[in-house]
Amino acid sequence: MSEAAQPARRIIARCRELAQVSDVPGQTTRLFLSPATREAHVLVGGWIRAAGLKLRIDAIGNLRGLLGSEDLPRLVIGSHLDTVIDAGAFDGPLGVMLGIELAHASAHDHLPFAIEVIGFSEEEGVRFAKPFLGSLAATGELSENILGLRDAEGVTLRQAVAEFGLDITLLPEAHLSEYALAYLEFHIEQGPVLDSDGEPVAVVQAIAGQSRIQVSFHGHSNHAGTTPMGRLRRDALAAASEWVTEVERYASGCEGLVATVANLEVPGGAANVIAGRCFATLDVRHAEDAVRLQAVESITAAARQAGERRRVAVEFKTSLDQTAVPMDTVLADNLAAACARFTGKPARRITSGAGHDAMILAGRLPPAMLFLRSPGGVSHHPTESVNVSDVEAAYGAGLEFLRSLRDDRAMFDLLVKRASNHRREAQNA
Amino acid sequence: MSEAAQPARRIIARCRELAQVSDVPGQTTRLFLSPATREAHVLVGGWIRAAGLKLRIDAIGNLRGLLGSEDLPRLVIGSHLDTVIDAGAFDGPLGVMLGIELAHASAHDHLPFAIEVIGFSEEEGVRFAKPFLGSLAATGELSENILGLRDAEGVTLRQAVAEFGLDITLLPEAHLSEYALAYLEFHIEQGPVLDSDGEPVAVVQAIAGQSRIQVSFHGHSNHAGTTPMGRLRRDALAAASEWVTEVERYASGCEGLVATVANLEVPGGAANVIAGRCFATLDVRHAEDAVRLQAVESITAAARQAGERRRVAVEFKTSLDQTAVPMDTVLADNLAAACARFTGKPARRITSGAGHDAMILAGRLPPAMLFLRSPGGVSHHPTESVNVSDVEAAYGAGLEFLRSLRDDRAMFDLLVKRASNHRREAQNA
Repeated sequence: MSEAAQPARRIIARCRELAQVSDVPGQTTRLFLSPATREAHVLVGGWIRAAGLKLRIDAIGNLRGLLGSEDLPRLVIGSHLDTVIDAGAFDGPLGVMLGIELAHASAHDHLPFAIEVIGFSEEEGVRFAKPFLGSLAATGELSENILGLRDAEGVTLRQAVAEFGLDITLLPEAHLSEYALAYLEFHIEQGPVLDSDGEPVAVVQAIAGQSRIQVSFHGHSNHAGTTPMGRLRRDALAAASEWVTEVERYASGCEGLVATVANLEVPGGAANVIAGRCFATLDVRHAEDAVRLQAVESITAAARQAGERRRVAVEFKTSLDQTAVPMDTVLADNLAAACARFTGKPARRITSGAGHDAMILAGRLPPAMLFLRSPGGVSHHPTESVNVSDVEAAYGAGLEFLRSLRDDRAMFDLLVKRASNHRREAQNA
Repeated sequence: MSEAAQPARRIIARCRELAQVSDVPGQTTRLFLSPATREAHVLVGGWIRAAGLKLRIDAIGNLRGLLGSEDLPRLVIGSHLDTVIDAGAFDGPLGVMLGIELAHASAHDHLPFAIEVIGFSEEEGVRFAKPFLGSLAATGELSENILGLRDAEGVTLRQAVAEFGLDITLLPEAHLSEYALAYLEFHIEQGPVLDSDGEPVAVVQAIAGQSRIQVSFHGHSNHAGTTPMGRLRRDALAAASEWVTEVERYASGCEGLVATVANLEVPGGAANVIAGRCFATLDVRHAEDAVRLQAVESITAAARQAGERRRVAVEFKTSLDQTAVPMDTVLADNLAAACARFTGKPARRITSGAGHDAMILAGRLPPAMLFLRSPGGVSHHPTESVNVSDVEAAYGAGLEFLRSLRDDRAMFDLLVKRASNHRREAQNA
C-alpha cells in the first residue's frame, strides 16, 4: 500500500461525513453562515486541530488552520466548504481535506514555510447570489456594497455575519498574511474531460475567461398556415436556430473554445403562429481572452447575418465579460513535475471552464490548481464522486510538490521573489 | 360608380357596426352563445329581414335567412359571426354581409334557385376549445361527445344552448336542406399573399391539409463551461436548432408547402447548463396530402439525423393529421370566370392555409370560396381591414356568379347533378 492510500481513504471518508452536515435533511446543502455551516466548523475544525494545526474562524466565516510559525513564508492550500443546493460531497470539501492531510503529513518534514489551510465559507454564492465571499474577504475585496447585499429573507450580509456571532470589524484579520507565498487548490474537474481521457489528475493552466450575452431576435409574428415560406416571413425562431448551429460550428472549429446557447425562449409561443420574438443566452469561454473576444465578435456577426436574411433585428446585451485567469507558470510546472514523479507519467494540463476560489486568490498570490477526475463528469449533483486512486494521486503529487519546495532552495527563493512581484503587479493593476 | 360601390360600402359599414357588439367593452370579442351573440342576432337579423329574407335561428344559434321557396334547389352562402378574443371586424362577418347583399340584389333576378345565407354561430372555437360548432350542426355532425364539452366555467354545450333559450331537440332542423346545391363562402385571406401580389381577390382551390406534431429532443444536461465541444456534449437545443433550419430549408424548396416550428422550449433552461431537453412544435400544411405526408416524413427524418449526430434521442407525437379539402372544381372555375368578367383580368387562384366553415360544409355540399385581400396580411387583430375596391370586386364577382347560374341552364343542371353525386360520395366515405 502506498504512502497515499490511507490518507486518500480518510479524505474521502471525511468528505462523505461532512456531506451529512446539511441545512436540508436528506440533501447536502450547506449555505453561507447557516446552521449547517456552524456544524461543519465544529466537525472540520476538529480535524484541523487533530492534524496539529492552529485553528481560527475569520470574520467572514472562513475556517483556517495554520501549521508553522506566523512569520514564516506561507503556502495557502484551500478550497470551499459551502455547497450548492442538493450538492455532492466533493466539490469544495475535497480540496480542504487534502490540505489538512498534506499539512498533517508535513508536520515533521522541516519545511522552510508554513502551511495555512483555508476552508472558504462561500464560493458557490447561493445565499446572497454573489460567489467567492470567503476568498474576497481573504484578498481584502469585500466592499461596502457587498456587505449590504440581502439574502432571500432580506437579511444583509453584515447582519448575517453578526447573527452567526462574528465581528465584521475584524475583517482586516481575514486578509491573507503578508508572508503568503502561493495558493494551491485541489478541486474536482466538474467536467468529463479527464474521465473521458482516463486521466486521474491534471494541472490547471488557466481559468477560462467568460462572456455571457443575452441575444434578442425581433421579427414579426404571422399565421403559420397562411404565410408562405420566404420573403413574407420574418421568423425570429428560424433566425435564432440558424445562429445556434453556427455557434456550435464555430466553437467546434476553435481549439479550447466552448460556446453554448443553453437557453432559448419564444415568448407567448403557439404552434400556429410564426415566432415574432425569440430570446437566447450565449456563454463563451476560453483560456485566452483574445480568442474569446474574437469568438464573440464572429458569433454576434453570425446572429446579425441570420437575422438580416429574414428581416429579423438582433440585439445583444452583455451581462458578463470576465477575463481569463492564468495560473502561475512556475508553480504549474512544479506541480506537473510532482505529478509526474508520483504517477510515473507526464502530467496532463487542462483549462478550467468553471470559476474557483483560485481565481480570486490570483489577485493577491501566484495561484496553482490541480484537478481530480470527475467520474461520469458529474457535478453539482448528489451522485458526484471521486476515485480513491485519483485522490491518492493528488495527495501523492501534493506531498511531492511540498517536498520539492523544501529540497530545492533556489526554486523556493524564486517563488518568494515571484510572490513579491505578483503582489506588486496586482497592486499596480 | 359601379353597381357594386354602394353595396360594398354598406357591407363594410355593417361589419364595422357589428364589431361594436362585443362581450368585452373596447374590444371585438363575440363568443359562442354569449350576450354579444344575442345582440348580434338582433342587429344582423334586422339586416337579413330588411334584405327580404325569411329569418330563423337554428338550435345551435346559426342565424339563417332564406330567399326563395323552401323546395327550390338552394345555394348556401355563409361564414361565421363569432370572433376570436380582441378580433378585427371582418374575419367571418364579411362573408355574411356579402351573402345578405347578394341575396338582396338577386331578389328580382328570377333565379332558378333559393339562396340561404347563414351566419354560423361558432367557427373560431374559443368558448369550448372546439371550432366549427355551427357548421357541424348544419352537416349533422354534432355528436353527443361534442354536446357534453364544457367551457371554462364548467357549463356544457348542451346547457349553454338551453341557457341561450334554444331547444337542443330541434338540432335536426339545423341540418342543411336536402335541396342544398352548393356552398359559397367569402372570407378575408388572413395572410399576406394577395396584398403582396397586388390582387384584390382569389378563388380558393383547396383548404390545405395540416399535420401538427410535438417533437421532443432528449440529450443530456452538462456544464456549459467544463464540457468541451464535440462528442462529450449531448446538446438537445443544438439538435433542435439544426432541425428548425432544416424544416425551413425543406419547405422553402417545396412549392405550396408551409412548415413551421413556431414554438420551442428548453425546460428549466439556464445560461450555463447545456440543454438536456428541448420541446418543439411542428406545423405542416399543403393542398395535396401526399406532398404534406412526404414532407412530414422527410422533416422527421431530419430531426432524427440532427439528434443522432449528437446522441440526442428524438420523439414525435402527432396531435393533428387533417386531410386537405379540395374545393369543387366546377364551382371554382365558374367563380374564377365570374371574377374575370367583373375585374377584366384572369382570376388569381390560391390555397387556404387556414381552416374555414367551407371545410366542414364540404362533407355535405360542393364547396367554393373566394378570398379577399387582407391589407398588411393582418388577421385576428383589431387592425384587420379590407379595401372597399376589393369588396366591390368580391360583390361584383358574386353577382356575376349567381347570374351565370341563372343564364346557363346546362351548367345549373350539371351543378344539381354534382350536388347529388357529392352527397352520395360523402355518405359512402
